[in-house]
Amino acid sequence: MDTSTRYFDDLKQSERFQSATYIVSGAAIIEFARRFDPQAFHLEPERAEQTMLKGLTASGWHTAAITMRLFVETLSFAEGAIGLGVDELRWPNPVRPGDAVRVETEIIDLRRSRSNPNCGIVRLRNVTTNQRGEIVQTMLASVLVVRRRPFGITTQHPR
Amino acid sequence: MDTSTRYFDDLKQSERFQSATYIVSGAAIIEFARRFDPQAFHLEPERAEQTMLKGLTASGWHTAAITMRLFVETLSFAEGAIGLGVDELRWPNPVRPGDAVRVETEIIDLRRSRSNPNCGIVRLRNVTTNQRGEIVQTMLASVLVVRRRPFGITTQHPR
Repeated sequence: MDTSTRYFDDLKQSERFQSATYIVSGAAIIEFARRFDPQAFHLEPERAEQTMLKGLTASGWHTAAITMRLFVETLSFAEGAIGLGVDELRWPNPVRPGDAVRVETEIIDLRRSRSNPNCGIVRLRNVTTNQRGEIVQTMLASVLVVRRRPFGITTQHPR
Repeated sequence: MDTSTRYFDDLKQSERFQSATYIVSGAAIIEFARRFDPQAFHLEPERAEQTMLKGLTASGWHTAAITMRLFVETLSFAEGAIGLGVDELRWPNPVRPGDAVRVETEIIDLRRSRSNPNCGIVRLRNVTTNQRGEIVQTMLASVLVVRRRPFGITTQHPR
């Protein structure tokens, strides 16, 4: 199967996907924090030691963004996956400089979109783990994905 | 009140905070997408016109990261706010190049941490709007925040 053209119809309930590995450098942790989450435990290695997190730790939003990157590359939907919503986003363990994280995606539920018959809604669980198998993030997400259409037939999206 | 030293004890239930405004440039949308969410509607202005989103749109994770930035700067906790979890994260309207977004934070609930008596858990709602007042993101979050301690008394965090 050409993974560059995955459509809604290609997915099966309970199917699981394993992503590649992504190394989270200390420099990347600090850069993300400077832009989006400027707090000492994400930004300043020495001060971070004195905080509740006891050392430099990636922002949870950085972990979430890396998870999206790994998810998008693994599932590789032909026309993309539009996030509708996320629930139960949790960060049970810290991401530290040098950690190698990866994502397992499990397809929880598949249903057609009522408002857009060309699309389906995929309910999925993404679990992000580090090199020791510790869970650093979990979430449930719903994404909108285009359905496979007969080649050459152009359909219109309702407005 | 010195907003650079806000503690758990300074917050009141139902209190609301209004952030500054943050301009989301097209270049920033594309840069974030290249790193974390490489899909056409976040990355390629011309192809984005042909997608379901009908134009270049910020990744939801970019909006979430910007929201964190505005929240952190507005609440400005003395020892930071550690994210415990997020629920009901939704993106009801797209963020487009040039949009000016801001965040309203409402304190929903305040309770002491059972595992760490020096801390409190803040349950809050963050609503992110654009320059037309349209809601571009909502979420419920729980964050861990340090309690105010008598000056000069050093307490230990339990391990």
